[in-house]
Amino acid sequence: MAVSAIADVKQPMCPSRLILEHVTSRWGVLVLVALLERSYRFSELRREVGGVSEKMLAQTLQTLERDGFVHRDAKPVIPPRVDYSLTPLGVEAAEQVSALARWTERQVDAVQAAREAYDEARA
Amino acid sequence: MAVSAIADVKQPMCPSRLILEHVTSRWGVLVLVALLERSYRFSELRREVGGVSEKMLAQTLQTLERDGFVHRDAKPVIPPRVDYSLTPLGVEAAEQVSALARWTERQVDAVQAAREAYDEARA
Repeated sequence: MAVSAIADVKQPMCPSRLILEHVTSRWGVLVLVALLERSYRFSELRREVGGVSEKMLAQTLQTLERDGFVHRDAKPVIPPRVDYSLTPLGVEAAEQVSALARWTERQVDAVQAAREAYDEARA
Repeated sequence: MAVSAIADVKQPMCPSRLILEHVTSRWGVLVLVALLERSYRFSELRREVGGVSEKMLAQTLQTLERDGFVHRDAKPVIPPRVDYSLTPLGVEAAEQVSALARWTERQVDAVQAAREAYDEARA
């Protein structure tokens, strides 16, 4: 199927848009950033991604697993242990998302200055 | 202020997280992708970003303008004309977001295959 040859995220029905929404979702972004560093157990990952609820983290991981970005590894041990890591495709997504996150972290002062200028011009 | 030196998107209260949410928001992503190509008038941009409502596009543009990513140029003409374009900071954000969007467009088949495998394993 030649879908990807004409994929365009700006078209509402293009399947690429939904994929982009998954990797740029509020929690998807942060899960990818965290998993790029190392694999995590669910509870560890929840602590690492500050503010995420159990339900949202589970949903986010399931969506990213189904898309082929995250690998879920349930170890046959007692007590049960489940590790989450990135697939090769997930690493590609995470590297780009993580670069954007790092860039954002470096722009905090610039954005804050822009907001102050914007608000002052309208005060 | 040394905030950006210790910025970390994984911390819920870090200002970088909100900036990241703005540039990765559903419509923020697509507006940045479109504006990386050229400047647009509001109505043109709304046609270009398929599916966005007038209200959501206005909100998205205002958020991106306040953050310093989008420049709003209201021409003193009749009828009124407003052009939206990227600032230099906005170009930096848009280049990264756009690269991710292009990558996503190329992965449609791979993600579709992953989803089918996932669903089959659970059928």
